[in-house]
Parts: sequence; structure tokens; C-alpha cells
Amino acid sequence: MTDASLFDKVVVFGVGLIGGSFALALKAAGQVREVVGFGRTLGSLSQALELGIVDRVGFNIGQEVSSADLVLIAVPVGRTAEVMARIAPCLGTQTVVTDAGSTKSDVVAVAREHFGDRLGQFVPAHPIAGAENSGAAAARADLYRQKHVVLTPLPENTPRVVARVRAAWELCGGLIKVLDPGEHDQVFAAVSHLPHLLSFALVHDLARRDNREQLFSFAASGFRDFTRIAASHPEMWRDICLANRVALLDELDRYRAQLDELRASLQRGDGASLEAAFDSARSARRAWTDDKAKT
Amino acid sequence: MTDASLFDKVVVFGVGLIGGSFALALKAAGQVREVVGFGRTLGSLSQALELGIVDRVGFNIGQEVSSADLVLIAVPVGRTAEVMARIAPCLGTQTVVTDAGSTKSDVVAVAREHFGDRLGQFVPAHPIAGAENSGAAAARADLYRQKHVVLTPLPENTPRVVARVRAAWELCGGLIKVLDPGEHDQVFAAVSHLPHLLSFALVHDLARRDNREQLFSFAASGFRDFTRIAASHPEMWRDICLANRVALLDELDRYRAQLDELRASLQRGDGASLEAAFDSARSARRAWTDDKAKT
Repeated sequence: MTDASLFDKVVVFGVGLIGGSFALALKAAGQVREVVGFGRTLGSLSQALELGIVDRVGFNIGQEVSSADLVLIAVPVGRTAEVMARIAPCLGTQTVVTDAGSTKSDVVAVAREHFGDRLGQFVPAHPIAGAENSGAAAARADLYRQKHVVLTPLPENTPRVVARVRAAWELCGGLIKVLDPGEHDQVFAAVSHLPHLLSFALVHDLARRDNREQLFSFAASGFRDFTRIAASHPEMWRDICLANRVALLDELDRYRAQLDELRASLQRGDGASLEAAFDSARSARRAWTDDKAKT
Repeated sequence: MTDASLFDKVVVFGVGLIGGSFALALKAAGQVREVVGFGRTLGSLSQALELGIVDRVGFNIGQEVSSADLVLIAVPVGRTAEVMARIAPCLGTQTVVTDAGSTKSDVVAVAREHFGDRLGQFVPAHPIAGAENSGAAAARADLYRQKHVVLTPLPENTPRVVARVRAAWELCGGLIKVLDPGEHDQVFAAVSHLPHLLSFALVHDLARRDNREQLFSFAASGFRDFTRIAASHPEMWRDICLANRVALLDELDRYRAQLDELRASLQRGDGASLEAAFDSARSARRAWTDDKAKT
């Protein structure tokens, strides 16, 4: 191979929405010769085969990984350690590894534990893309197109390894951003994990009441938007919250302090303070929407 | 007139989205001969005239109201008392009055103060409809179609008066629900006012930080949905929060207790409790969406 952005053999652990879309995107870009899939259930694997997401189903991890150019770990966060432990001893010298987890400090800690002196071959990643549905059937080649993909490279990574992983995500259409793992986790605690927790909390609180049917019957479009993320996957979000516990607790405490301020304004009937806070929020929200529209 | 659902003359105070759509809907139903509009600015009134929302602009409140069959008060909540004070002495014996305010206990208190022995002619209402835009130009005949309209009749109302007001909102396409004013305010504190406050709080908190640009740059679709209502009108929401202060403080305290529970689960790494709460929320959110889809 003369082109650093070309992959002869890619191995994907987890052939659902995330892993499947990665494979389809690389194939659509014509930059991979063969995709081999590993998965937990025969059903999802055979579906991935039928849909052309993978060319083969893998059976021997050592054999497949040692000859792979690129490995993507796209399993639920709770299984990441197990996959790392199994692939670490088998990595070829040419193999680079990336992941797609929503939190990064915990993934780096697990990687440090399992990869040993191969740690430099792993470049952590978090593609900021998702969809209502999950599973291989939901995978699509354009899932990552024009979406942010955060890389959190490690001091042990060589520039060549980072460039290879970066190239893979760019072939998927991703817009690459580089952050420190800790910085990544703080940012996503604020703009993703906390909002999910807040939305789950509201709906759970209402769902526990005796008059829940009456309450839900009067909920309208504002409620619909605010609570859309409360329909997210419970186990996945349990794992994300636990994995990013420290940063999330910090964000939750900041938010409670903010609520306390608004509560005090409301209690004393201070309309000017309420309006100032609402106005600040509206301006920021509108500026954000306008910025998004430009990209 | 022989038909109780027919209005010869309707007077609308406030010819923006809410009042304008009410007038357009009654006209589209062919159930009003003449609509007379009062408003704060000449600009909005002449626009309402041009758009065919009103047939005439009113100048003499006493004259217009005394011969009106139906009066809608659709002014910002802060001006409701003033309008009630001005129309109260002029109501004809045939005139029925309704409003469109988002809170009801405060409106009833103001009405009690100003309408005196004419209180029975006023039936409070809250149409659960809104739109991204406001003003006469945003008004449309179908704004209330298939939307809930909550009536909170008073002990002083005769059945005939309630039936007249009900008929007007039904002609607009509304689905009528009847609640006690206090019950109304509790329900909407929970499913509308609190979510708005929570969404404003999140965006305001992020907007105050030094790294706000970085944070907003990584916000994605979950954040977009959760914060859509943080772009709502600051003065309007200031007024709603103040008007419904007691019920909203109560809801806010319940919510903070719920957050404290989740915080404790997170702190002690109790994944089972987190997952149970998230799962309860997801089930309730999905059931609600399914119910909505049926109507």
C-alpha cells in the first residue's frame, strides 16, 4: 500500500448502527478491501452479512486482528475491556485501533490497563452521531457525514497512527476535532449527559404520580421536544452516566446552583432577574442555531 | 339569532397570533358577521385589517363592547387587568367574554376584582397552541384545530354562557377540556412551565461560561431538542412564571428532590437505580408518543 488512507482489511467489533455505519462508509468510499465482523449474536452478524456491511463473519480473533490494518471497537461500553483484553496480544505491528465510545477518560484507563506496550496503536474516538434506531438494519453509509468526530490521542500515539485513524473517520465524512480525554468528558457532560439526565428525571417524576394520565394528556409540543431524549436507551445511558460520573456530578451541581438562583428570583417575585436569565438563554440558543445553519 | 353557536359581532383585544387566529377561524367557519379589533399599535392593527383578520379597527370601547356577542381578551398577561377594567362597565347583557391566558388562577382573581356582578359573563380559557412566530402575520385559521382548549368555568357562569364560549372555541377546531383553575395551573406548571424553566436554566448556565463557544460547538441533536423551548419569548415566560409562581415553586421543589435522588444513585455508582429511573422515563415517554399518534 502506498496510500496511508487506504485500508486493506478492517475488523469491526459490534456490527450495529455505529460499527455498521463505519463499515458501510469506508466501503462507499472505496477505501477498504475487506470488512470482517465480530458480534455477540449470530442474528446480528448474519443480518450484517446480508446487508453487505461485512464481507465475512470472524471466528478467530487472533488470526483476524493480527492481519488487520484497522480495528474499530463499537461494542457497548461495558464490553470494551473484554474486547481490548482479547485483541491486545494479537495486534499486528501495522494494526491501528479506534473506538466509538461516548466517554473517553474511562476508555483510556481501560486501554492503559489492557494494551500494555501496544497502547500507542490505539487512538480513542467519539463520533457525535446517533439515530432513533439501533442495530445493523439502521446502519447507513452517511451516518457520520458532516458530523463531528472527536479524537483524543494519547501521548503514546505516533503521528502516523493518529493520521491513519483520522483518515478512517474522515473517509466516513466526519469533521475531526481533537480534545484531551478529560476535556472531552467535561464538554459532553455539559452538553449531552446532563441534558439526558434532566430529561429522564422530569418524565420519571411525572410517571410516578397518581394523576400521570391527566398530566400527559395536556403535554404539548414544548414537552415533546424537551423529553425526546428521555426515550433514549436506558442501559446505554446508565453506562455513560457511570463512566463519566465525576464530570457529570460536577455539572449536576452547577446546574442545581443555577436552579437555586432561579428559584430565589421566582420566590421573591423578581421578574427582572428571571427575564434576564431567559433572555440570555434565548440569545445563546438563537446564536447557536444560526451558527449551525451556517455549517 | 336562533343558533347559539353563531356570533353577530366579535371584539378581539390583541390582534396577534392568538387573537388573530381566533378571528380567522370564526370567519373561516362562517359563524361571525363582523370582527372588530383593538390593539396597542397602529401597525399591528392595520396589518390585521389588510390580512382580513378584522373588519374594522375599534376606537370606542364602550360602544363596541356593549353591542358585542363575544369578546376575546388576547393581550399579554400584564395588560389583562387593564382591559377587564375598561370593558367591565360596558358589557351588554348578551356579551360573553373569554381569554387565552396560559395561567388561570391569576386571571380569575383579576376578573373577580374587575367584573363585579358581571363576572358570570366571563369564561376563562387556555388554548394549548402556539407557534414559533408571533404577531398578526403569523395568525392562521387552523392554529387551534385538533388542539386542546382548556375552559375553567366559574361558579358564577350560567350553562348558557359556558355553552356560548365553548361553541366559539369549538368553531375554531379546539378539543374542549374542562378543569378547575387551580388544577389547570398545577397541570401546566408540571408539563409546560417547569420544562421551560429547566431548559432556560441549562442554556443560561452554559452561556455564562468562559468556554461557551467550545461547549456549544459540540452540542448535537439531543441538545437541540432539549433546548428548543429556551428560545421562547423571555417577557412572556417571565410573566407566566410569576403568574403561576406557587404551583411552579412546588413543581420545582419536587423536581429538585428527584434530581437529588438521581444524584445520590450516581454518587454511589448505583447503576440499577439509574437504569430503573431511565427505563420508567422511556416507557412513559413512548406510551405518551403512541397515545398522541392515535389522536
